[in-house]
Amino acid sequence: MTRTAVVALGGNALAAEGQQGTYDEQRANAAAMAVPICALLDAGWRVVVVHGNGPQVGNLAIQQERGRGDVPEMPLFSLGAMTEGQLGSLIAIALYKVCGRRHPIAALLSHVIVELDDPAFDRPTKPIGPFFSKDAATRLARERGWDVTEDSGRGFRRVVASPEPKGFVEIDAIRCLLDAGHVVVTGGGGGIPVGRRGQDWDGVDAVIDKDYAAAELAHQLQAEALVLVTGVHAVHLDFGKETQRRLTWVDAVEAERHLAAGQFPEGSMGPKVRAATRFVRRGGQVSVITTAQLVVATLDSADPADESLGTRIVTVKSREGAIA
Amino acid sequence: MTRTAVVALGGNALAAEGQQGTYDEQRANAAAMAVPICALLDAGWRVVVVHGNGPQVGNLAIQQERGRGDVPEMPLFSLGAMTEGQLGSLIAIALYKVCGRRHPIAALLSHVIVELDDPAFDRPTKPIGPFFSKDAATRLARERGWDVTEDSGRGFRRVVASPEPKGFVEIDAIRCLLDAGHVVVTGGGGGIPVGRRGQDWDGVDAVIDKDYAAAELAHQLQAEALVLVTGVHAVHLDFGKETQRRLTWVDAVEAERHLAAGQFPEGSMGPKVRAATRFVRRGGQVSVITTAQLVVATLDSADPADESLGTRIVTVKSREGAIA
Repeated sequence: MTRTAVVALGGNALAAEGQQGTYDEQRANAAAMAVPICALLDAGWRVVVVHGNGPQVGNLAIQQERGRGDVPEMPLFSLGAMTEGQLGSLIAIALYKVCGRRHPIAALLSHVIVELDDPAFDRPTKPIGPFFSKDAATRLARERGWDVTEDSGRGFRRVVASPEPKGFVEIDAIRCLLDAGHVVVTGGGGGIPVGRRGQDWDGVDAVIDKDYAAAELAHQLQAEALVLVTGVHAVHLDFGKETQRRLTWVDAVEAERHLAAGQFPEGSMGPKVRAATRFVRRGGQVSVITTAQLVVATLDSADPADESLGTRIVTVKSREGAIA
Repeated sequence: MTRTAVVALGGNALAAEGQQGTYDEQRANAAAMAVPICALLDAGWRVVVVHGNGPQVGNLAIQQERGRGDVPEMPLFSLGAMTEGQLGSLIAIALYKVCGRRHPIAALLSHVIVELDDPAFDRPTKPIGPFFSKDAATRLARERGWDVTEDSGRGFRRVVASPEPKGFVEIDAIRCLLDAGHVVVTGGGGGIPVGRRGQDWDGVDAVIDKDYAAAELAHQLQAEALVLVTGVHAVHLDFGKETQRRLTWVDAVEAERHLAAGQFPEGSMGPKVRAATRFVRRGGQVSVITTAQLVVATLDSADPADESLGTRIVTVKSREGAIA
């Protein structure tokens, strides 16, 4: 039986903190990420790779700003499409090197539907692109209809909404490629957000959380596993405190309780735990949150209590399924 | 019987001469191009859309240059990948509007193999990106290993090689999507050029002619038709002279004779006629060179002499096939 895993890689995994984000750095990072993905494939999983684009789309926005005297700027969703091209190719080339002779690879652009009446559009929260002075930010807000806000004391930035993903437009194409044995790289940056206007839909300037997008895609594909790759081995309770405790195997109900208790910061682990929980709540078998190195061992381990592995989130139902 | 057509759109068709190249302009141009493509689909053709990226990749190169104090520049092939994302999404959204309810659409990134010993690498000819002063160009040539040349008296520019396409890496994925009924948008900008180095291959800074790439793809797919969409209704002999004559139905042997006689300038119609001829020489049924408006009528016309239509290039064999 072939099982399907949707694996989400952080944009920071490709342009890591402390790095400049050069092509050579990103290529080396992509090569490192390719190894566990190929291990999953060799273990018999069908794999869809979703990836972030935060640093990359931010860089494009800065370049657009610097070049605006010479070249017309493109809307944010179009920059998102550019990063799907840039990073889809980068990841595909890295995968080809590690396992291209055993597994065909396809990088597909994807448009992801959002509702234009999503409450997120009323309170844009996601900072994007360059920092501006207060005066420049006020002018840009007026001229371009941007929402702007002060960010981390370093100046003013544009903020955009982060609405919920409501479905991948290209779901049939993704399924078709998977069924034909391809590793599919898609949904980069959470996908290109498109909003319905009447009978049509069109690009929308927004940023879809890539972990939510991956969870939505895993659900649409009826995948067995959602794998959220991150920089830490596992999810912890009381992170950084004396009482810190590693979560290895957690029921969705318990994960939701910890979420509600504010155990996981919204900027980092919160959305991951929420996406992971959501997926198993909608019928998925298991969600995994761990580092690239521990993905395969965590996903295929039969021991729920192994403290050396990453975090697995399940439901009573999916747990019974796994035991049976 | 379902017939397949590979349709190549110029990058200038999306960012037309005299326009600034804003998103709204490009969206309107894409909407106009979507109409004949949907007409082809409704006439029963399976369609692959290949598109140019000249103005768009040039703009990205300028923005990269302007932002280089803040943001690391990406290699040219990575900018090409970005335009595959940007324009693949733009064209897909335009197609969805016109015929998305009848025909599913998929935009796939594609890597196209070039030989690293292609003679084109010994004499780079394709100007790309911003103009520089002679001093700046000399410095960049030294610092980055660029080839630079004076271009049209307006300054110095980087020039890159334009090698021959030797195969689409993602050919199976393209076939799979076509077989499942998708319109496939791929090979943007001639595809992302990759060169073999030992067992591996990697991105190469080069520009593949998108009409040659389309001809290669049409051949690999064993498509019936190659359609090169351009700004003029048909190919002409003695273009601009009193003896100007429209070519409606031309045998490949005759087309090659005109090519050899220098009838078609290398900067514009030459590569199109060469790509068109190459495709039918390798077994294709017909190549068409015409405007978007005349594509369907030209492709489906039974009258070889109709002066109101575009140019069809055939071989004796393909002509017999068409008659039979």
